[in-house]
Amino acid sequence: MGKSDRRGRALSLDSVAGNGLLNRRALLGQGLALAGSMGVAGTTGAAAEPLKDEPWSFAFGEITPPLQTPSRFEKNVVRALSNPNGQFRTSHARTPHHLLNGAITPNSLHFTINHCGIPDIDPAVHKLVIHGMVRQPLEFDLDTLSRYPLVTRAHFVECAGNSAAMFSNEPVQAPAGLLHGLVSCSEWTGVPLSILLDEAGIDPKAKWLVAEGGDAQHLDRSVPVKKAYDDALVAIYQNGERLMPGNGYPMRLLLPGYQGNMNVKFLRRLKAVDQPAYTYFETKNYSQILLGGKTWRFHFLMEVKSFITSPSFGQHLKEPGFYAISGVAYSGTGRIARVEVSADGGKSWGEAALQAPVSDKAFTRFVMPWRWDGGPAVLQSRAWDEAGNAQPLRADFVAMRGETRKPVKSPLAFPNQHYNSITSWGINAKGEIAHVYS
Amino acid sequence: MGKSDRRGRALSLDSVAGNGLLNRRALLGQGLALAGSMGVAGTTGAAAEPLKDEPWSFAFGEITPPLQTPSRFEKNVVRALSNPNGQFRTSHARTPHHLLNGAITPNSLHFTINHCGIPDIDPAVHKLVIHGMVRQPLEFDLDTLSRYPLVTRAHFVECAGNSAAMFSNEPVQAPAGLLHGLVSCSEWTGVPLSILLDEAGIDPKAKWLVAEGGDAQHLDRSVPVKKAYDDALVAIYQNGERLMPGNGYPMRLLLPGYQGNMNVKFLRRLKAVDQPAYTYFETKNYSQILLGGKTWRFHFLMEVKSFITSPSFGQHLKEPGFYAISGVAYSGTGRIARVEVSADGGKSWGEAALQAPVSDKAFTRFVMPWRWDGGPAVLQSRAWDEAGNAQPLRADFVAMRGETRKPVKSPLAFPNQHYNSITSWGINAKGEIAHVYS
Repeated sequence: MGKSDRRGRALSLDSVAGNGLLNRRALLGQGLALAGSMGVAGTTGAAAEPLKDEPWSFAFGEITPPLQTPSRFEKNVVRALSNPNGQFRTSHARTPHHLLNGAITPNSLHFTINHCGIPDIDPAVHKLVIHGMVRQPLEFDLDTLSRYPLVTRAHFVECAGNSAAMFSNEPVQAPAGLLHGLVSCSEWTGVPLSILLDEAGIDPKAKWLVAEGGDAQHLDRSVPVKKAYDDALVAIYQNGERLMPGNGYPMRLLLPGYQGNMNVKFLRRLKAVDQPAYTYFETKNYSQILLGGKTWRFHFLMEVKSFITSPSFGQHLKEPGFYAISGVAYSGTGRIARVEVSADGGKSWGEAALQAPVSDKAFTRFVMPWRWDGGPAVLQSRAWDEAGNAQPLRADFVAMRGETRKPVKSPLAFPNQHYNSITSWGINAKGEIAHVYS
Repeated sequence: MGKSDRRGRALSLDSVAGNGLLNRRALLGQGLALAGSMGVAGTTGAAAEPLKDEPWSFAFGEITPPLQTPSRFEKNVVRALSNPNGQFRTSHARTPHHLLNGAITPNSLHFTINHCGIPDIDPAVHKLVIHGMVRQPLEFDLDTLSRYPLVTRAHFVECAGNSAAMFSNEPVQAPAGLLHGLVSCSEWTGVPLSILLDEAGIDPKAKWLVAEGGDAQHLDRSVPVKKAYDDALVAIYQNGERLMPGNGYPMRLLLPGYQGNMNVKFLRRLKAVDQPAYTYFETKNYSQILLGGKTWRFHFLMEVKSFITSPSFGQHLKEPGFYAISGVAYSGTGRIARVEVSADGGKSWGEAALQAPVSDKAFTRFVMPWRWDGGPAVLQSRAWDEAGNAQPLRADFVAMRGETRKPVKSPLAFPNQHYNSITSWGINAKGEIAHVYS
């Protein structure tokens, strides 16, 4: 490359932090000399060597299907299953973040947790009832809800137990999708719950709603009426199509930023009450045990968090040179305000570029230009939300919340919840990437 | 309903246009009395009649799959195929807009047109070469491109022949997805083409790029270098995952707002040249024939357009009462500025609410509250973009562009392109919906 591009812009490959982090202006391509691209052998200027024609350039291709699916060369891009044979216990399916990009999770890859398998619900039969402290109990089916004014918003949903493997006092060696795969982000379309509560005539003395799912789990959770009026939806579409069966078909509660299980799937009842129900799922199963033995009860909000998806564990840097460090950030409080990235294990930090639009309680993808010199590096990301909350360092986090004091073989079963500290990827001189604590 | 809701807000069901169109404030649920919801029989106030438990409330459900798919009750939500047996000709697959919502098209349902079937391309072998009037020809593969700074943006892609059935002088009776199904909207992630051209050192005298696809069709189109520097991408992800095979896997050109075929799929060569190539696909196959026999050559931009997806042909209004009129609007010029809706065939208009974010050259969903009185109605939508372009009325459009003067049995084969006038759905007293010209 010369000293300026064809539009005469000055080069700006100035470093902003240690170990090769570059100014965000490098993302505009100003003077990048990317080692990845190759000059075409035997060509000069005006004409390239003819490309070798491959079989697909001659043959009439395959039949167009009614529903298209990924290429057979992408067959590794699937969710990791904790219970692939459907045994009589909980099933987790984790989003493979290390193989994805952008901010939307495709519906096929949205994470799911189902404690009693996936129900096969007939939407012509399924009903949602709003009852309890209301002037007039009401019943809705999918057709009825579809007539209401629907709103569409991108929101993440995260299981309270996501990233629990990082409570281990030794870093679990697993890709980003296995460590952090219990969070996904969709464009959800649904009816604002406030409209339905107004129509039922909810009693001003009703402060909680007990939300109950229609599958065999009968999960029920107490939800503040205030949240229902803030931004809750009864969601009936996910990325434009009806909900996936594992994500709550035909209708689910959506409480943006609140822990996943409260976003009750297969929603069949909302009962307005004046105090919480203290259900099993809020007093035992999803109650956060703290150091000292107390619990966080009714601790709903998923904290600000980020992780790098590329480069990350399971990938391999083949040669020194330019790489775009990329990942996702999100907060249950609101919008992401800033993401910083370090390539030297937290000694120095540079500010990453945020992809627009930066939406409320949704994934925001960040990108940071980096030149790897071939030496050891530790990549980290750290997010702040618009309320000023900062993603904690791991040492600070475990000092407050504890850690699991034995090495754990499987990242699939950890006792603790609401983990949101920094993730570190250690890169050695061979370009291999390990999960490290730094 | 009383005269105010529980938060004491005044009711505002004032009409804004003829035949039942309501003020957008009605979307906030202020005093809506929605006929669709039903009081629960035999209940009063504090407790609802127990719901009948359905089989899925007792049985352990189905196994969680690696890739989840829609419910079997949604098996009609598929693309309409023009060549389901893969005969030796072009295959169209149309997005079923009348069954979708939101602004993103799920990847499984993105429209495709493939003239020579769908190639089965090995991404480890496929290369993109940039050559011609450049300082140094360059070669890229999918791994290399993945190291570049990627940007993510929502954009629609529309075939120039979309909505061609509406050139017919008699309205073709077909759902929105069959009339308008050759447009879809995805979140695309890719490398800004400007970065690659800068790296190759494109000659300032090069004004065009000849883009060529790697499948057996060998489609090639001339693209202005100016567009490449404005907002073009080499896209490698679609809604977060790798491109669908029918949408150009492993890489495609993305020229936001330009007619679909220029967004060359299976992209394998970009040749920088000083004049357009006048290829078959730009002088014959995708050249727009105008009244009088002249053609629009190098007419790239897809014009501002909108259509109502609900209520629409194929749906049925079961009873008078409240309905949310909903549809999509988009423009190749930029953002949507305004959408108006009529319920009386264009005699009067009310302004619809636009769902945020309103993105550049992307679907914007609009919603308009409406109370159907059970009488005849004709629903229309009309969009304006931020440059001030207005979607034309049908009479004005066909006066300028002509129409096909015989009734046409199939909407799948029409000779004309760039159709963007208003679509009208006529509703009779039974709630049946027809495609009409009004």
